[in-house]
Amino acid sequence: MGKRPTASIIVIGNEILSGRTQDKNINYIARGLAEIGVELMEVRVIPDIEGKIIDTINEIRKGFDYVFTTGGIGPTHDDITSESIAKALGLEFEKNREALFELEKYYSERKEMLNEARLRMAFMPKGARIIKNPVSGAPGFNIANIYVFAGVPSIMQAMFDSVKSELRGGEKILSLTITTNLFEGDMASLLTKIQNENKDVEIGSYPHMIDKSFGVSLVLRSDDESRLNAVAEILKNMIMMMGGKIIN
Amino acid sequence: MGKRPTASIIVIGNEILSGRTQDKNINYIARGLAEIGVELMEVRVIPDIEGKIIDTINEIRKGFDYVFTTGGIGPTHDDITSESIAKALGLEFEKNREALFELEKYYSERKEMLNEARLRMAFMPKGARIIKNPVSGAPGFNIANIYVFAGVPSIMQAMFDSVKSELRGGEKILSLTITTNLFEGDMASLLTKIQNENKDVEIGSYPHMIDKSFGVSLVLRSDDESRLNAVAEILKNMIMMMGGKIIN
Repeated sequence: MGKRPTASIIVIGNEILSGRTQDKNINYIARGLAEIGVELMEVRVIPDIEGKIIDTINEIRKGFDYVFTTGGIGPTHDDITSESIAKALGLEFEKNREALFELEKYYSERKEMLNEARLRMAFMPKGARIIKNPVSGAPGFNIANIYVFAGVPSIMQAMFDSVKSELRGGEKILSLTITTNLFEGDMASLLTKIQNENKDVEIGSYPHMIDKSFGVSLVLRSDDESRLNAVAEILKNMIMMMGGKIIN
Repeated sequence: MGKRPTASIIVIGNEILSGRTQDKNINYIARGLAEIGVELMEVRVIPDIEGKIIDTINEIRKGFDYVFTTGGIGPTHDDITSESIAKALGLEFEKNREALFELEKYYSERKEMLNEARLRMAFMPKGARIIKNPVSGAPGFNIANIYVFAGVPSIMQAMFDSVKSELRGGEKILSLTITTNLFEGDMASLLTKIQNENKDVEIGSYPHMIDKSFGVSLVLRSDDESRLNAVAEILKNMIMMMGGKIIN
């Protein structure tokens, strides 16, 4: 498939690793990137440990066009993402004027106190550009190719949506799914043959439960709609020829 | 906290990276490991690319006591996990007798054909020990400190459950959650003080939506139940003193 910008996600959060929380941010970002033709190539989930955040950021940021982080930018002692990223990049960690403005506005509108802990959320790596937070005031930020989002899904989604339009996308990855009641093992040798004869269309085979018995979703991905449809026809014929049903 | 065995998960799956599928395996394994006192330290989600699987396995397997992989062990052309792991370890990829026995039994009971594609699922790195699959026959395997599971959640769960009792666990990590309607920013400076005065109990602060407004879960983790309860009391007093409510 064509060359597209690449991306990775770093989920920073003990609560995911401890099993306390089911992550929902990876899937949201993954779907959003697919829409604009950016290929998500890798995800890492790491604990709230400064050295680990620094090492992971520095390893990852060189390998991908975009890096998205989620989690660890609140006002409490365990929120160490922003400072760790400043250290990773060798940048000063300083009060950001735009962030301060957003925080002052948010808390004065609510007649709440912009105390010292909340002021910490105005600190960002020098040169960071804020990403507004319409949900709870405290902004995320972008520095170099790194986009730093909150961990709470509703806030993370708003932040991702607000930067999505400025990301350089690629050709949209076209995708088409054919679901059948046939077993993977019965189709496998024909699928291999069809994949080998049509290398420009990626064929993925995903078994799953359909009404307590197994079915398979064949997921086709390609840059070229006509080729996608052509291979879909070949697969539908294969399923029919084998006496299978096409579901949806 | 005390020294515990460590673990990492490698999720092998284009369907997670494309956003097509919401992963549920990470959370299941994370919760299971927490129950037996194994610390999940890192998760990676990577694509079905042989070189990437090999590099990730070789980087990760040295750093942790246990490595769990999910996905890519079925009969189709895109199932390349088992062979990639054999290559990563420099082991022959050969027909495993126990795996063959399981497959023969499963398919003969169902009067289905153990064709060439399905036979591929009997191939494993030399020396692998199979992990039985009560759901759909084809086993996973364990080689060195690597446990190789299917990607379909119901199968993955059965495989994980069947090896869980043989994993060397550590002292169970005790955990206690206090949820309040107070804002993180109002509690932050006191939380920092309490954390600094009680370093043996880890205090995590997780904001989330409660009935359309924000609340915070304070999650305490420790080896020592009496210390956990003592710090919980301190936090409850703090919440009361600040005029907050304790929810649940």
